[in-house]
Amino acid sequence: MKLLVVGSVAFDAIETPFGKTDKILGGAATFIGLAASVLKTDVSLVSVVGGDFPQEYLDMLESRNISTEGVEVVKDGKTFFWSGRYHNDLNSRDTLVTEVNVLENFDPKIPESGKDAEVLLLGNLHPGVQLSVLEKMEKRPKLVILDTMNFWMDTAWDILMEMIAKTDVITINDEEARQLSGEYSLVKAAQKIHSMGPDYVIIKKGEHGALLFHEGKVFAIPALPLEVVFDPTGAGDTFAGGFAAHLAKTGDFSFDNMKSAIIVGSAMASYTVEKFGTERLQEVTQQDLLDRIALFKQLTTFEVDLYFD
Amino acid sequence: MKLLVVGSVAFDAIETPFGKTDKILGGAATFIGLAASVLKTDVSLVSVVGGDFPQEYLDMLESRNISTEGVEVVKDGKTFFWSGRYHNDLNSRDTLVTEVNVLENFDPKIPESGKDAEVLLLGNLHPGVQLSVLEKMEKRPKLVILDTMNFWMDTAWDILMEMIAKTDVITINDEEARQLSGEYSLVKAAQKIHSMGPDYVIIKKGEHGALLFHEGKVFAIPALPLEVVFDPTGAGDTFAGGFAAHLAKTGDFSFDNMKSAIIVGSAMASYTVEKFGTERLQEVTQQDLLDRIALFKQLTTFEVDLYFD
Repeated sequence: MKLLVVGSVAFDAIETPFGKTDKILGGAATFIGLAASVLKTDVSLVSVVGGDFPQEYLDMLESRNISTEGVEVVKDGKTFFWSGRYHNDLNSRDTLVTEVNVLENFDPKIPESGKDAEVLLLGNLHPGVQLSVLEKMEKRPKLVILDTMNFWMDTAWDILMEMIAKTDVITINDEEARQLSGEYSLVKAAQKIHSMGPDYVIIKKGEHGALLFHEGKVFAIPALPLEVVFDPTGAGDTFAGGFAAHLAKTGDFSFDNMKSAIIVGSAMASYTVEKFGTERLQEVTQQDLLDRIALFKQLTTFEVDLYFD
Repeated sequence: MKLLVVGSVAFDAIETPFGKTDKILGGAATFIGLAASVLKTDVSLVSVVGGDFPQEYLDMLESRNISTEGVEVVKDGKTFFWSGRYHNDLNSRDTLVTEVNVLENFDPKIPESGKDAEVLLLGNLHPGVQLSVLEKMEKRPKLVILDTMNFWMDTAWDILMEMIAKTDVITINDEEARQLSGEYSLVKAAQKIHSMGPDYVIIKKGEHGALLFHEGKVFAIPALPLEVVFDPTGAGDTFAGGFAAHLAKTGDFSFDNMKSAIIVGSAMASYTVEKFGTERLQEVTQQDLLDRIALFKQLTTFEVDLYFD
């Protein structure tokens, strides 16, 4: 199946305890597209960049069969830019600069070839923009996956609710799930979020892994314990990309295959954090992915033989 | 095999958002003993209480085949008492009262019948007291399991290092592992702690589960996502008790069986938090335990069928 991704293609400048970068390639849709390309999923990006965005980045994406037909270039505009500094624990960061630039008036242009995509991944954008994408599709995609964040809960609640009502799978972090639902228990939070629309609720917990909730069932996966996390930027987007790409590639939206998709996304994300930005993700092979999926299997497999009298 | 447990038998008074208790039965050794009794493990407690400690509590423990021969009663002393109030998230708490009482001069008396125990669980006490227990054993137990905390790292570093060097399995939480090792990455922290002595390092992460490290291998288990956590008191001790009791019952100290033991401990702890203090744990049946182990299996099982070209 075809995967359509709407989200940012951007510049990042990153500081971690291990070093710093100049302006490098970033953006949610970029990480998602690259993750999809490892799985050789038919993927199309919808985004907007400025005239300052290097053609070589678009060429690199195209060379990996990531369609950039839907990436609008605003010649006299500037590309979205984010700069941040991670703390020593790499779990928290300060934003140093956010220049929204051309993303401010982002009006997604869906290319004809993308309008019949069966799987739609709506990256973290204003929920009004996300809704407008749904309206532009030829027909409703078979699976709508939504990423969002607390900022939209604070500033665009009603329209966010409207968007969530039309969502099949929502991915948010644990604090956002609590804010969205008003419940501290993640089990109760997931129940409330189900009642807002999504059949599947994925709660991302960073270094503590992720939870998937569906019809009273739960799946939990720890993150792979890593010796070195070099740069966490894009890990969540890579996760979402691997997840959505696996579902589009297999066309199977069952709970069991959603679990597989979470493993694929987690394995992919565990590579992203090993180098700055998209650098490591660009090198990942299918064999790398298989290796790390095998590690997840080792990490979580157990047998209990009981011996009761 | 025989399990010998050295730790507190105490009074707790607990406040949670759901209610509060008067002085009720608490203490690490109590939870550990009760967990072991569910598995029908041969278990013996070493502790000290005051003349104010109700005989009915000791009778209850004995009725479950938990030997209290090693629980010294100091007639004119008072039992250790802790009182705390949990915050709304149940993940943090304030200590309201700590009366150390007879535990201040605790000099563990190992009963003759316990001196040849093959598995020794040293609950969270001054490391000097923990070391003195090892010296009183007839011979070194086959497996020494140590629980400790940041307080001893701050106040008794050298003797704690001496104790850790004689330990096979150490259980600590993630912040303590970081403090003990000076490493933020838990993988690196576990490596450093291995080099201090223990072959097995268990890192407890509360609502995020636990990690087991051994010779470069890792096992990760999420906590069971619960709809209601009523009172977290004793969850960590129940976990340690289920863990140690499974190992003593099976006499198998392999990595694979350590994984099983972690599941048994986690399943047991998931019951403890459902009511105040030891109330729920006292009701747990072997069937309950099997049911929850099956839930852990469901929670963590996945298959990934890949489809690479």
